[in-house]
Amino acid sequence: MHSRRAILYMPGDDRRKIQKATTLGVDSICMDMEDGVAANKKAEAREVIAGAMKELDFGKSERCIRINQIGSGLEKRDLIAALATNPDTIVVPKVETAEQVKWVSEHIETYELSSKLNIGSVRLLVGVETAKGIMNLKEIAEADKRLEAIIFGGEDFAASVGAVRTKDATELLYARQAVVTACAANDLQAIDIVFIDFKDEAGLRAEAEEGARFGFSGKQIIHPNQVEVTQEAFTPSDEAIKYAKRIVESFESSQKEGKGAYALDGKMIDMPLLKNAQKVLDRAKAAGKSKTSATDYTDFHGNLKRKSV
Amino acid sequence: MHSRRAILYMPGDDRRKIQKATTLGVDSICMDMEDGVAANKKAEAREVIAGAMKELDFGKSERCIRINQIGSGLEKRDLIAALATNPDTIVVPKVETAEQVKWVSEHIETYELSSKLNIGSVRLLVGVETAKGIMNLKEIAEADKRLEAIIFGGEDFAASVGAVRTKDATELLYARQAVVTACAANDLQAIDIVFIDFKDEAGLRAEAEEGARFGFSGKQIIHPNQVEVTQEAFTPSDEAIKYAKRIVESFESSQKEGKGAYALDGKMIDMPLLKNAQKVLDRAKAAGKSKTSATDYTDFHGNLKRKSV
Amino acid sequence: MHSRRAILYMPGDDRRKIQKATTLGVDSICMDMEDGVAANKKAEAREVIAGAMKELDFGKSERCIRINQIGSGLEKRDLIAALATNPDTIVVPKVETAEQVKWVSEHIETYELSSKLNIGSVRLLVGVETAKGIMNLKEIAEADKRLEAIIFGGEDFAASVGAVRTKDATELLYARQAVVTACAANDLQAIDIVFIDFKDEAGLRAEAEEGARFGFSGKQIIHPNQVEVTQEAFTPSDEAIKYAKRIVESFESSQKEGKGAYALDGKMIDMPLLKNAQKVLDRAKAAGKSKTSATDYTDFHGNLKRKSV
Repeated sequence: MHSRRAILYMPGDDRRKIQKATTLGVDSICMDMEDGVAANKKAEAREVIAGAMKELDFGKSERCIRINQIGSGLEKRDLIAALATNPDTIVVPKVETAEQVKWVSEHIETYELSSKLNIGSVRLLVGVETAKGIMNLKEIAEADKRLEAIIFGGEDFAASVGAVRTKDATELLYARQAVVTACAANDLQAIDIVFIDFKDEAGLRAEAEEGARFGFSGKQIIHPNQVEVTQEAFTPSDEAIKYAKRIVESFESSQKEGKGAYALDGKMIDMPLLKNAQKVLDRAKAAGKSKTSATDYTDFHGNLKRKSV
Repeated sequence: MHSRRAILYMPGDDRRKIQKATTLGVDSICMDMEDGVAANKKAEAREVIAGAMKELDFGKSERCIRINQIGSGLEKRDLIAALATNPDTIVVPKVETAEQVKWVSEHIETYELSSKLNIGSVRLLVGVETAKGIMNLKEIAEADKRLEAIIFGGEDFAASVGAVRTKDATELLYARQAVVTACAANDLQAIDIVFIDFKDEAGLRAEAEEGARFGFSGKQIIHPNQVEVTQEAFTPSDEAIKYAKRIVESFESSQKEGKGAYALDGKMIDMPLLKNAQKVLDRAKAAGKSKTSATDYTDFHGNLKRKSV
Repeated sequence: MHSRRAILYMPGDDRRKIQKATTLGVDSICMDMEDGVAANKKAEAREVIAGAMKELDFGKSERCIRINQIGSGLEKRDLIAALATNPDTIVVPKVETAEQVKWVSEHIETYELSSKLNIGSVRLLVGVETAKGIMNLKEIAEADKRLEAIIFGGEDFAASVGAVRTKDATELLYARQAVVTACAANDLQAIDIVFIDFKDEAGLRAEAEEGARFGFSGKQIIHPNQVEVTQEAFTPSDEAIKYAKRIVESFESSQKEGKGAYALDGKMIDMPLLKNAQKVLDRAKAAGKSKTSATDYTDFHGNLKRKSV
């Protein structure tokens, strides 16, 4: 699966900003037709995005297009326009039901068939950003195999429940961890909230690191300054990689010696810690920081289902 | 919907306390037939409430009556006695299933029909106060359109799961945020836990403000001293109202200029922040602090479904 | 229900460690065939456990055997071998669906029938340790009446969602409280996470006390040093017992006087606080610290459904 440590939103009607985004080395660029575009600029956004997709070199960055939400009256025209640019990924905001996920995926499939593309070649990400979306998380996460990630919209969710956004984001804890859990249960990436104050680098770093600790795979960002800090937070540190390698190696040799759980630096190491270590190595590899990934190691039980990142 | 920043419980068998409650300017007064009344005083409570409803002037305060829980054997007689007083609102404690909500609502409807009242004229609030209730939150919140709010009983819930109540209430975080989410998904008010120590004003203020930040619309209270602090906490501050107005106004003009997201004081403002600002203005209006409410502003997308508070 | 303040895991292939466990006065000993045993020692573990069950005196400690997870290919042979030792309890790790619970329970029932044991004489505990297990908690908790407890595996869960385990365990808050709630709704015990660092007694104590405050009935442990601290944390303090007795007694007399809610030390006492006090006394009794349990007190409403601990 494509690494999505940071997904950078850029207004779809602003060619200059989209161009800027392509120079940043960000994992994913999301050209927005929705909230980032004024109501009277929606048609213009479709055209500007089409031009950008045709003329700009996005490098390794994933080319995502966010359409307007289903029920806005704009979604169908947006989707047709977005697919016509041959994007990597469609992003659907404010999804509230499994049916909405299936509706979009089916339209994408029709496009793939008529364009002689392989089925499944266009990826799908959805935003869950309302109370209703959180209530239907399980069904949304299970809805369609095209789906690769759920993006949790913290500001929108707070507005939806009438919560006040704070720096420590306690008001979002339940919803954020519900999203992480539903995603993991379906081998989806979970993408964390935007940090609005783009001048507060320390605040961004803290929130991004917390997101990584919670199990998010990446974070939405809204400003070029946020790319580096965010992607760093979702990349394992050298120290963490080193420790993970020690666990994997010592586990292998202890298994050969017929030991199950064993002590390393005074801590009992067993299967769950091994799996955690393997995830660290997978993430390191996806971020280009490690040559070996845990996937290269023997799967001891034959049932450690892990997604490749 | 009636503003319920504070719901003050008074024992149904104590006329003096009910009378006192009517003088406090509290949003809702809940005359209790349940836990606040001893087992051998249940019949007396029904009579005292009937007298109070007939003879006292409750001013703008909502006149709620809490019956005993379904399954107690008291619920039917309580409900009949409560409805006979022509109350604004029936409160049902310890609800655990959607069926219980429907059962009460249907009985109320029968009363409305036979009394030539409009269907829906008697409001319904339910308490969710047990582990089972939290497990069935989704179904309870969707059960009946007469339902206006879910009241989360923190002490009872703690007893139900064997938790120890602490001042910071971490043990209730999951359940409180689950209630807020389920309510918001169904346009219900969420009413927060009681703060037991009625002499600790600072503690009450902190807990009430946290509840407001989480998205609760109000809080249960058990003492006259708690009215002012609680209602204040659920009323937006002058500063918050002023900032919300600036967001709404600047959003309107930026839309006219064809801008989507834009910066205000160094923060990106877009649709979710606008909606949050609108909620603040709605609450301010409900609390009598603002003449304009967000409802008076243009609905840009035509799909910003917001409840009037 | 058997008290399970601490469940101590011992590798099933290590007779010396199992023997040590029987000397510790721990509520439950779990002889492990799963993660604590290397892949090439699984058959040996079955034999060592059989020998230990035959020859060792476990005193009052519950004799649990943890089989390998369903789907590992080992589960059936493990279960047959485990049942043949006539254990108190079967523990199934990494349960993800209700069907898995039923599958095991049915196999146990077949064994009970063919061994002329009473149906229900072998107890069942299941581990929920993955995102999928948490998503299906409600169904798992309701799956089978043989089930007595759900054990939450924090390390495995963290690995499953890609979270980083921290000392304050914020990354597990949602899942831990979801487990407590689902258990309480079905009168099951909830057993909390392992504290890995077995040399950090203060850390263990803090985490165990937090678990008790959240409503867990006990905690998994992995080292003899952890028994005392853990069991203490899940036993009410003398002070808590004394206060609980005062509440129960004052409640009784206030009911006789016809008072409902009343003040004790400046706090309003009513039904939920009474029930909490009763739980404290139940736990004290189960831990051998109190002669009377709350179950001995009058049930005022006739509907205070409480499990005996």
